Amino acid sequence: MRLVTYRADANAAARLGALSDGQVVDLALLAAAKGLVLPDNMLDFIDLGPQAVRSTSELLASFEGRFPVGTAWPADNVKLLAPIPRPRKNIFGIGLNYVEHVAESSRSLDTSKDLPKQPVIFSKPPTTVIGPGDAIEHNAKITQQLDWEIELAVIIGTKAKRVSEADALKHVFGYSVMIDMSARDCRRAGQWIYSKGQDTYAPFGPCIVTADEIPDPYTLDLSLAVNGVTKQSSNTRHMLFKVHQLIADISAGITLEPGDIIATGTPDGVGAGRTPQEWVWPGDVIEGQVQGIGSLRHPVVAV
Amino acid sequence: MRLVTYRADANAAARLGALSDGQVVDLALLAAAKGLVLPDNMLDFIDLGPQAVRSTSELLASFEGRFPVGTAWPADNVKLLAPIPRPRKNIFGIGLNYVEHVAESSRSLDTSKDLPKQPVIFSKPPTTVIGPGDAIEHNAKITQQLDWEIELAVIIGTKAKRVSEADALKHVFGYSVMIDMSARDCRRAGQWIYSKGQDTYAPFGPCIVTADEIPDPYTLDLSLAVNGVTKQSSNTRHMLFKVHQLIADISAGITLEPGDIIATGTPDGVGAGRTPQEWVWPGDVIEGQVQGIGSLRHPVVAV
Repeated sequence: MRLVTYRADANAAARLGALSDGQVVDLALLAAAKGLVLPDNMLDFIDLGPQAVRSTSELLASFEGRFPVGTAWPADNVKLLAPIPRPRKNIFGIGLNYVEHVAESSRSLDTSKDLPKQPVIFSKPPTTVIGPGDAIEHNAKITQQLDWEIELAVIIGTKAKRVSEADALKHVFGYSVMIDMSARDCRRAGQWIYSKGQDTYAPFGPCIVTADEIPDPYTLDLSLAVNGVTKQSSNTRHMLFKVHQLIADISAGITLEPGDIIATGTPDGVGAGRTPQEWVWPGDVIEGQVQGIGSLRHPVVAV
Repeated sequence: MRLVTYRADANAAARLGALSDGQVVDLALLAAAKGLVLPDNMLDFIDLGPQAVRSTSELLASFEGRFPVGTAWPADNVKLLAPIPRPRKNIFGIGLNYVEHVAESSRSLDTSKDLPKQPVIFSKPPTTVIGPGDAIEHNAKITQQLDWEIELAVIIGTKAKRVSEADALKHVFGYSVMIDMSARDCRRAGQWIYSKGQDTYAPFGPCIVTADEIPDPYTLDLSLAVNGVTKQSSNTRHMLFKVHQLIADISAGITLEPGDIIATGTPDGVGAGRTPQEWVWPGDVIEGQVQGIGSLRHPVVAV
């Protein structure tokens, strides 16, 4: 399934939907039409566990694209929000997780040229999250070095505490796209949270593709363009620490919980690594995508 | 007020209480006894805003220590939890925020000997939080350098976005105590979240003292002992970036929200800064306190 959080109109509440045949289907309303019960928001749905994914997928398929009146809308007519508009904790970000990006970072930032021996983890507060099309804030009082990073995002489905690499992918609910905006001049004593944690710095969406539809997350093209010019273009096969390794590693010390998000790092082509360096400014438009999931398009605006 | 989250017995739900005359008073039940309504948990109470603090304080005082049957218990008979058992996002931690600790860190860790020019921010996931008396986990597979840091914790009361230093303290709901446990050998490429973010690494409590009762947060003794031997002993007057400066600084880029927690940094005397270095091990007991708020006592256990 391709799951979304949507508003039917500007004043409507945010609700859980699924993309199907060019429509957004409201899962709670669809279930109700069959006398069943499903939650109206993504986090409660994730909490139901893997069996709910299977049964909901079957429910959706049973309609063969012909959904009862009042349960579905043309996708173009609704507003998509971030699939999880308000995460329950900070997003886990992974730094220096593509080989070429490690090299470009060591040339331009203060990081080592050696590949990290363990995943480099940072975090982005829930207040960083914005949905498809929302504006990325550029505060010139704080940064003159606002940069882009396209990433595959992993959404955790079931609690993971000290899980093995072999079992790790069983804990994945699905995959999405995140742009990890980074104000390079806001790093402090090496800590990245102020650089990567400012409001609007985590464009997220447009949907979560459930894990059953992406059996191999290490074959996905991902790319990013600024004002239509491609800046990053790579494939998740170049990830240094793979998703199953990240989950095993983090969960050795930090319990992962349903709804947790891991942004798995970015390939080379960020602005800091270019000669001369490039940054985004108000008026620019950032477009990023991951194969098989979808694309995000965000204007940068002054605040 | 001295607000707590408590369980009346092991099977009871966690509820909001106030410490008064040696008793824990259940605020929702006390309000109900007067035909009023108050929430049964800390975060919902914080969300009510400053007027609720004033009116609840008056309500509490109106009973003059004689609370209706079924609304209060001797404090020794209940189990206190962390005042916010499950924060809505990662805790904001401040590193290198006491002058002497900057010096000891530069001698023993990989940090600069220069005082930071801006607050150094990191984060601890909600899964780090434990309540008074709960065990701190020592996982020898991950760390051989588990260290202590006693800190004044600030709890945000109202949304703060780009607030001035002059207005910042108006956004404080109250103060508490946090021990920022740190596995020094788990820093990665300089990032501290894995070092400070593991399960049980944020002992928190025993209560939140509302801001009206601590008009000057820069005069508080704070100390920590391991197995009864004092290791840290200082005063919040030695904080490098004061609470109002931290709030103004963070909120310039990251919106602070009701219930957010800022652990404001630790004075000197941590294990890493000692000669020879000292770490805690299973069987050790850590005791920390901040003047006017209370103390925490936690055993370290092997996992």
